Amino acid sequence: MIRDLSDDEAREALVCKWGLVAPDVLPAWVAEMDYAIAPPITEALHRAVAAGRTGYPQFAAGGALGAAYAGFAARQFGHEVDPERVVATVDVTAGVRLALDVLAPPGPLLMPVPAYSPQLAIAEICGRERRDLVVEPDAAHAGIDLAALDRAFADGARVLLLTQPHNPWGRVFSRAELEGIRDVVRRHDAFVISDEIHAPITLGDAVHVPYLAVTGTAEHAVAVVAASKAFNIAGLKCAQMVTADERLHQRLVTAPMARNDSWSVLGVEASIAAYAEGDAWLAALRTTLTARREQFVAGLAATLPLARMRPLEATYLAWVDLRAYGHDDPAARALDLARLQVSAGHDYHPGLAGHVRVNIATSEARVEEIVRRLGVAVG
Amino acid sequence: MIRDLSDDEAREALVCKWGLVAPDVLPAWVAEMDYAIAPPITEALHRAVAAGRTGYPQFAAGGALGAAYAGFAARQFGHEVDPERVVATVDVTAGVRLALDVLAPPGPLLMPVPAYSPQLAIAEICGRERRDLVVEPDAAHAGIDLAALDRAFADGARVLLLTQPHNPWGRVFSRAELEGIRDVVRRHDAFVISDEIHAPITLGDAVHVPYLAVTGTAEHAVAVVAASKAFNIAGLKCAQMVTADERLHQRLVTAPMARNDSWSVLGVEASIAAYAEGDAWLAALRTTLTARREQFVAGLAATLPLARMRPLEATYLAWVDLRAYGHDDPAARALDLARLQVSAGHDYHPGLAGHVRVNIATSEARVEEIVRRLGVAVG
Repeated sequence: MIRDLSDDEAREALVCKWGLVAPDVLPAWVAEMDYAIAPPITEALHRAVAAGRTGYPQFAAGGALGAAYAGFAARQFGHEVDPERVVATVDVTAGVRLALDVLAPPGPLLMPVPAYSPQLAIAEICGRERRDLVVEPDAAHAGIDLAALDRAFADGARVLLLTQPHNPWGRVFSRAELEGIRDVVRRHDAFVISDEIHAPITLGDAVHVPYLAVTGTAEHAVAVVAASKAFNIAGLKCAQMVTADERLHQRLVTAPMARNDSWSVLGVEASIAAYAEGDAWLAALRTTLTARREQFVAGLAATLPLARMRPLEATYLAWVDLRAYGHDDPAARALDLARLQVSAGHDYHPGLAGHVRVNIATSEARVEEIVRRLGVAVG
Repeated sequence: MIRDLSDDEAREALVCKWGLVAPDVLPAWVAEMDYAIAPPITEALHRAVAAGRTGYPQFAAGGALGAAYAGFAARQFGHEVDPERVVATVDVTAGVRLALDVLAPPGPLLMPVPAYSPQLAIAEICGRERRDLVVEPDAAHAGIDLAALDRAFADGARVLLLTQPHNPWGRVFSRAELEGIRDVVRRHDAFVISDEIHAPITLGDAVHVPYLAVTGTAEHAVAVVAASKAFNIAGLKCAQMVTADERLHQRLVTAPMARNDSWSVLGVEASIAAYAEGDAWLAALRTTLTARREQFVAGLAATLPLARMRPLEATYLAWVDLRAYGHDDPAARALDLARLQVSAGHDYHPGLAGHVRVNIATSEARVEEIVRRLGVAVG
């Protein structure tokens, strides 16, 4: 059900991931998958184009998109979402910006670091101070340190950008971890923006718990979700903001239109198809990505035995600690010496040496080649 | 070459314009056209979907989109644009926001009023003061009053949002008018954001002059352009920022990615097709819209002889002064009494009574019916 793209197909389809590297470079960087998109999405897009559906989309809130996401959240996460409280926005990072601007109280933003690199700038863009909650590379476990979170809120921070499942940590937070975060947030009357773009991409037996599915979070949180990452449709530009509190919902939908009217009508169509008709394809994707994870972990152990990698519970982005090999910028070496494009760890954790983020959402043969090239460059 | 959509087709295609009104309401409000989109655009979209091109777009600056726009600007406006200085952004209003945030000097924003309604909020969204340059409804001519502009800059305003051709004024500014604006702007070292989304939709023999085609504007101006309005693809989300100055261009392309990475890959494909292959369709569109203008003006004169309307030189949005009929909100009357949805003038000019904006981009039969219903409601 998951069809690998050939190199030629991938260059035609993924004009960023494959198009921005030289022809001899194997791309394992930006978070896109070298798989054909799910047939229900292709069909929905062809239908919409044939109908000339290229004008303004209909609703920000609710509608067919809200219903489709609510159905998906119920089936996939056992999470009950009010379809009327699903609000379209153009993409997840724009949704985080919107949440900061119209929902969150003023004050510094806490960023767990390493962090999704473009979001490192979001505090500054929104006129806020950024404060980092750093997971040190030698920590046994990547998580939110509740004592540090408590101190940060006590010191004046007001908002936590929680990315869960986390990119690039690869972590799926347990319900107990989320409850611990909730308790600290409530103690300080703070706010949570939960970026759950990777929620559908859990691997093996990991289970995603939406932050809003934790009791006692409705009044202090918004989730930003999307079909874009799991279904490889990031270029179609439609994410969703989910709230569980009428006051927050009203602030979203009464914000000036120019703050939030940029989502695409074809992104809506594709997202509805993904949420409503994509379960079987998504299940096959998880199986495929879980197999690629096993392959990558085994290959890495054999090829670069000093590499360290925490368990990859979700996403297809492996966060690899290569400090033992003594190179400050192994991503640059991989490109120079082995024509492999991975992402540099310091993009996610400024100042951090010796780490890379590797995209393993590709064919079995390419994963093997990724490991081989990484070994050539770093070992 | 311009094909009218049937009511059923329009409801399938234009889910906002036709979908947000009751089935018995004739929609003549939001700026979308009841015409089938140009075949080269449909074909380009089907090709892109078949190739699975749903991931991140490739470049912000230049590329095939820059080349296509530069070719279009040369052929349509005799304007030479450096294709490398064409930068994608998600839509025109988002582009205005980006320009305010990264290009324009700090200080109050001057808005010529009546104004495109969502942009009335853009100053506040960007943390700026808004100051209005009001065109009074009894003014013989809708234009920028250079003496008022000079006073406003002397009083501390720093940026002019110039919409040209103007919506809802329907004006195409002459080169002499633009030169007058340029001289005042330069005297005060101020900045111009030129929203030229309606540039391709000139009617009759009107000629659009890009602001950047006026000498001496490069260092103080950015144009925000799009194929979206002329080609009915506003829901595909791709506009372009055009600069003619390397310093301004660099500020655009070095802004943090999260400020500008939301344009759609299918919007890029559609825009390239429109710019590169849309000239003949656009010429036919202008002929059609010019005929609808003549029809509307004649119908209005016969049906509502006290209505006043300045010459409609561009756009398909007629700004109609109905104050002589004594109704504060003729748009509300049109909906209530005649099941006609037009836009209320006070949305564009807060506090202004007795005006409507009427969308005439539809079939000959519907324009006749629009006039008839307006007469029933207002006369």
